[in-house]
Amino acid sequence: MSQTDTSVATDAAIAYLREHDTEHLAQLDEFLRIESISADPGRIDEVRRAGQWIVDELTRLGIERATLHETSAHPIVTGEWMKAGDDAPTVLIYCHYDVQPADPLDEWIRPPFEPRHENDRVYARGSGDDKGQLFMHLKAVEAWMATANRLPVNLRFFFEGDEEVGSEPVEAFIEEHADLLRADVCVVSDGDTFDDDGTPAIGYGLRGIAYWEVRVHGPRQDVHSGQYGGGVDNPANVLVRMLASLTAADGRVTVPGFYDRVRDLTDEAHAAYAALPFDEGAWADETGVPGPMEGERGHSLLERLSARPTFDINGIWGGYTGDGAKTIIPAWAAAKISTRLVPDQDYREIETSMQAHLASIAPPTVRVEVRVIHGGAPAITPLDHPGIGPASRALEAGFGKPPLFQRSGGSVPVVAALDAHLGLKTLMIGFANPTGNFHAPNEWMSLRNIRDGVVSLVHLWAELGAMRASDLRAGEPAPRR
Amino acid sequence: MSQTDTSVATDAAIAYLREHDTEHLAQLDEFLRIESISADPGRIDEVRRAGQWIVDELTRLGIERATLHETSAHPIVTGEWMKAGDDAPTVLIYCHYDVQPADPLDEWIRPPFEPRHENDRVYARGSGDDKGQLFMHLKAVEAWMATANRLPVNLRFFFEGDEEVGSEPVEAFIEEHADLLRADVCVVSDGDTFDDDGTPAIGYGLRGIAYWEVRVHGPRQDVHSGQYGGGVDNPANVLVRMLASLTAADGRVTVPGFYDRVRDLTDEAHAAYAALPFDEGAWADETGVPGPMEGERGHSLLERLSARPTFDINGIWGGYTGDGAKTIIPAWAAAKISTRLVPDQDYREIETSMQAHLASIAPPTVRVEVRVIHGGAPAITPLDHPGIGPASRALEAGFGKPPLFQRSGGSVPVVAALDAHLGLKTLMIGFANPTGNFHAPNEWMSLRNIRDGVVSLVHLWAELGAMRASDLRAGEPAPRR
Repeated sequence: MSQTDTSVATDAAIAYLREHDTEHLAQLDEFLRIESISADPGRIDEVRRAGQWIVDELTRLGIERATLHETSAHPIVTGEWMKAGDDAPTVLIYCHYDVQPADPLDEWIRPPFEPRHENDRVYARGSGDDKGQLFMHLKAVEAWMATANRLPVNLRFFFEGDEEVGSEPVEAFIEEHADLLRADVCVVSDGDTFDDDGTPAIGYGLRGIAYWEVRVHGPRQDVHSGQYGGGVDNPANVLVRMLASLTAADGRVTVPGFYDRVRDLTDEAHAAYAALPFDEGAWADETGVPGPMEGERGHSLLERLSARPTFDINGIWGGYTGDGAKTIIPAWAAAKISTRLVPDQDYREIETSMQAHLASIAPPTVRVEVRVIHGGAPAITPLDHPGIGPASRALEAGFGKPPLFQRSGGSVPVVAALDAHLGLKTLMIGFANPTGNFHAPNEWMSLRNIRDGVVSLVHLWAELGAMRASDLRAGEPAPRR
Repeated sequence: MSQTDTSVATDAAIAYLREHDTEHLAQLDEFLRIESISADPGRIDEVRRAGQWIVDELTRLGIERATLHETSAHPIVTGEWMKAGDDAPTVLIYCHYDVQPADPLDEWIRPPFEPRHENDRVYARGSGDDKGQLFMHLKAVEAWMATANRLPVNLRFFFEGDEEVGSEPVEAFIEEHADLLRADVCVVSDGDTFDDDGTPAIGYGLRGIAYWEVRVHGPRQDVHSGQYGGGVDNPANVLVRMLASLTAADGRVTVPGFYDRVRDLTDEAHAAYAALPFDEGAWADETGVPGPMEGERGHSLLERLSARPTFDINGIWGGYTGDGAKTIIPAWAAAKISTRLVPDQDYREIETSMQAHLASIAPPTVRVEVRVIHGGAPAITPLDHPGIGPASRALEAGFGKPPLFQRSGGSVPVVAALDAHLGLKTLMIGFANPTGNFHAPNEWMSLRNIRDGVVSLVHLWAELGAMRASDLRAGEPAPRR
């Protein structure tokens, strides 16, 4: 298509969306009514029903090979439309159709699975995280297919039903079904816009994670702290000493080699962070802390929240925790600890070096057990990735404002796995509202974000369709206009 | 009485015990059958019944003013026999008649409140701790009264029913009823012999204690460690750093001024410790630890177990402690901590200095709360106390071996309270078996310790009766023989 043709077709697709707005929102409600809580064994069939609902929709839209795949857990949905030509880019779209549990139910003002439209928002479990965003992708595809009977790019779809419970089957699926997932770039819509004022965002980095359980064993059973104190090394004292020694005063992790592979921020990256609007006071108020921790010198708070590794004790327990006093030396004390990792840290290497380090600092008076609980790789998409320009233009066209670029402090296992197995870079283009109560009662998404987001996706496929596949993989291309 | 008369009377009292052995053991069983569990609200009447049983026994033996006193908790029993003369010493005897709960019941081979005599032992809850020992005092008095119709010394009795639940009413009782408790020396029988081979012991020191709960508050609620890690100071990280900083590598407490009042061991005290038979390997095996902690230089393990202060984390908790991983920064983390104290540390001073110190090291990113849970003073009886010689001779006469002298690492609130309010020094003369399962299922006491112990007490009153009251209070006296 010529630039003019594309522009006309985009306009037609957007007009189609405007015309069918009421119908689409009703269909979104239908999707949100399915109680696809992946953590609830009583709702296995509901999760499957949501997956099947998507397969049916994809098929109805003309997407080929739409399939519900059995896995070790909930099903995975794939499908594709590969008729844009060999030369056209192929994009993999990832979302998830499972949702968080709705507890505590009595804090919901409206029932979680009876969507309500109020205040220009849709309230329901999954409205923002992530069924609403998955649905937006279906509508952008529908708009193109209904008006042009084609898509400007090749699209592949990868929708899972286990994201809220750890994405356990995903890595094996990627390994076994690479042929269904291969693409030039991946778009993940499972995040949010930069703010609630309609400033869109492109996420280009995620932290990895390594997570352990540490247990220090001392006497055979709890012993009297009067009778044995001063002779029996207290496992809680030892645990606390060991954990405290894992970070320096500025929060840097002291495990040998921990920073060896950490990629330092470039001057450009520092500048990009500095350009982001950020109110430290508002941030502290939101969390309820007196102020941010001091942290590593040379890094702003925003940088430390997403571009630097962390060490956190996620849980700690041992000994007497009831009312009053019990004068014991506990038999053991334990902690769950984790580090967030940044490119190019290798979580498997970190897992091992932490275990070795803890063993090396354990005193001979106790027995220390360190178990790896889970790990995930960090991911980053270079800011000069050729997909960034088209995505920015698409978001600006949809929201009326250019996007801001952000790295997220969290971890999304699928992103790192796609990079590791398929060399696939991801653009995180999220549409949920930052204050939209994901994982909490009264989840909501604004109708404005839904509408502007779908329009952005219509533009995104047009923008990427103006590129050659080879250009999307290397260096900012000259658009074929 | 002349030395010869006393010797004859002592022999008569001992002969009486031998003659009435079967009857006395049956009476012990009667006392042990009373289910005087002070912690059990359902057994309030049983605790009272045990107290009344003692009052009746004291009265029957000719003890005057035997009384069951109401308190804020269980009753306290007092009584006295003051006819040995103004010049004769007055001894206060302290024991407790309440017992530990019997849980877990299914681990008892014999029912806890149906005493059984097997293997030359009596098995029952309270056999060693402490009803058996209280009963032995009654029998020593009975032996004297039945054979000589008098005691060689003035005796006062102080038996409580709240020892296993913290002795809460005891301090107020001592303040209000000083007239019933005044004496020249106190004998506490609530401990054990040095070993299970019949080596008796005299305890001359107890540690004090100060006990706090520390809580570190961070964000308003648990927050996502990906989203906030690196910015929100983790309350568990902070707690662990603060607690770790409270001790140096050798276990010494770092709170400023903590050691200011610690009385160093004299060369004689070091020598006394060194003279005690002690097998570190057996000690470690018993507790199940690979070996003792290193601890302060210049102090042996035994010294560190009883003559030096300690710092212990008795419990710690916060954040996620379930299965698997939850990636949170907890809203708060808490710990129960305590220090054992030695003469002349002041637990109130220590309580305050710990609170001030923790406040001073708390980072400004969290809110730290430190609450005093309970405290008790350390106690020591000088090894040249004039009661030590008579007590040693009495124990050697009863057990056929001289006693060893030991300081205990634990805390017995009543001992410090008697010293603080009445200036009363205590000799801890315990008869339970060290491995007799106090506070555990299948509690037992050997019949040999019961018999040798009562004989020792018969001798003890004779030995002390050979002294003048004034001599017992100052400097080793010349016995009046």
